[in-house]
Amino acid sequence: MELNEIYAPVQEDLIKVKKSLTSISRIDYQWLSEQLSFLVRETGKALRPALTLLSGKCFKYNLTYLMPMSVSVELMHTATLVHDDAIDNALTRRGRATINSIWGDEIAILMGDYLFAKAGEAVADTQSPRVIKLFSQTLGTISSGEINQFRGAFDIKQSRENYFHRIYGKTASLFSLSTQSGAILSEAPEESVAIMKEYGDNLGIAFQIVDDILDFTSTEEAMGKPVGSDLIQGTLTLPAIMLAERYPEDNPVQKTFETKDTKYVAKAIDMVRNSDIIDECFKTASEYCEKACHNLRSLPDTASRQSLYDLADFVLVREV
Amino acid sequence: MELNEIYAPVQEDLIKVKKSLTSISRIDYQWLSEQLSFLVRETGKALRPALTLLSGKCFKYNLTYLMPMSVSVELMHTATLVHDDAIDNALTRRGRATINSIWGDEIAILMGDYLFAKAGEAVADTQSPRVIKLFSQTLGTISSGEINQFRGAFDIKQSRENYFHRIYGKTASLFSLSTQSGAILSEAPEESVAIMKEYGDNLGIAFQIVDDILDFTSTEEAMGKPVGSDLIQGTLTLPAIMLAERYPEDNPVQKTFETKDTKYVAKAIDMVRNSDIIDECFKTASEYCEKACHNLRSLPDTASRQSLYDLADFVLVREV
Repeated sequence: MELNEIYAPVQEDLIKVKKSLTSISRIDYQWLSEQLSFLVRETGKALRPALTLLSGKCFKYNLTYLMPMSVSVELMHTATLVHDDAIDNALTRRGRATINSIWGDEIAILMGDYLFAKAGEAVADTQSPRVIKLFSQTLGTISSGEINQFRGAFDIKQSRENYFHRIYGKTASLFSLSTQSGAILSEAPEESVAIMKEYGDNLGIAFQIVDDILDFTSTEEAMGKPVGSDLIQGTLTLPAIMLAERYPEDNPVQKTFETKDTKYVAKAIDMVRNSDIIDECFKTASEYCEKACHNLRSLPDTASRQSLYDLADFVLVREV
Repeated sequence: MELNEIYAPVQEDLIKVKKSLTSISRIDYQWLSEQLSFLVRETGKALRPALTLLSGKCFKYNLTYLMPMSVSVELMHTATLVHDDAIDNALTRRGRATINSIWGDEIAILMGDYLFAKAGEAVADTQSPRVIKLFSQTLGTISSGEINQFRGAFDIKQSRENYFHRIYGKTASLFSLSTQSGAILSEAPEESVAIMKEYGDNLGIAFQIVDDILDFTSTEEAMGKPVGSDLIQGTLTLPAIMLAERYPEDNPVQKTFETKDTKYVAKAIDMVRNSDIIDECFKTASEYCEKACHNLRSLPDTASRQSLYDLADFVLVREV
């Protein structure tokens, strides 16, 4: 199923969200304005705003609040990417040059801050102190999770538990904010908010596991960044953990981390591809998708609820 | 008058704010926790929380909301300093090594983000969408102002207007948030909120002018960072603008910017000190302090109002 079909119940409003994101760039500084319009136009799959709208549409859908919320989650996502790229010295993202590679780390830091501010302004328009608090807590979870990842880089001895903790912080927490806020702003009963949290938490983890798989199985052309980027950055992902478990000594992950020599990256990719590790990882991702959807049946039977089921399937088959 | 005396009407609550700032560091990551407690303990003059509390105390003082607000403005201030130091490659601040100099730019970026998140959580506790919106707008003003400053670095041709615009963004906007939020959260009438905004705007500009004077007249020992830091960073401040105006050709500011050779910094400092430029700058700062206080007489006659007058005097005579 294509993403467009899955988004059908909220497609029109998602277009409004994208337009609103573009208008964010109408600001004082002409120079900044140009760069920002370039940045926010690149909203990619717009998965997080779609989650907010679809979650909201399961209940009393009110675009007055859901629109700024959807804008807010995408802006927060974009802001974290801008900072991440500066931290990782990444040269490309989605096939385009990163902000830091064009204008330097200084502008990347400040532009990320500016986008956080705009995200904060948008979430303030929801008029919901509960959602605003959740928004800030999520930013705290993301940044402390990133600190954890950065500090643990090139450390082969990290546990699976640590991995899941890290990917919750860096990815699932924002998915969870997206779905919960949609439900809260649409006056969902508390049990339903909890179900939407469970959905966001688990879908986010599944999404990140698949991201980590694609870093081994995809192509630079499809991803818009080099294959094996995680290993090069020293980030220990699930396929790499499994490889290390199977070859506890002299495995190419350990060698990459020890020597930072990229020749071992190709070897690691090759070994992962020629094993059942990818299948095992997909199995794990699939289990998280099942957990995500486990209680959705308690929600009102709507087209939006069906889209949430379909999104969980999509996450497992996506190629970028 | 000492700062302690000026703060007297809110001194006890200011201690609570500082304790609360220290408790922010009780978080998941032990390593991060240690660094944060080090960071937030350094609250310096705590001018911004004091402004919030004093502004609030002119009206219906309610610590339930003023406490998180005071914590929030100091956290936002600290977060911007952490990012600024990374951008400027600053080695010391307040006589201590900066986060970026100890742990690198990456951790500085993420720790700044984390502090923004904590500031956001605190402001959410005010339960006031208006104040929360103002908070985010202020962060936007600060970061776009910093972008402007960074882009304009080493450009001798910046106007005074540009200078005042820049220092509004980087300093006065947060003073203004501090005073306005204090008034709003204490149910001040709209005219009084406007007076507190006028006070914060103008006090902030005066404060920054004095900061820029001290960069020429103070000592490394007193400031905890090298004298002439602004010139070295390429930041054109009011004393430097005046020097450039008086010696339009071959002035040491221009030479510093062109050659980035620090020998001209000493020359510029010497020339500024041996002129009436410092007096002229103090005169300008003093005018902003007068503007700040101009309408305070319309506020209720309280000890806190007197403190606001006294703070405006203090800003002009402070040595660090």
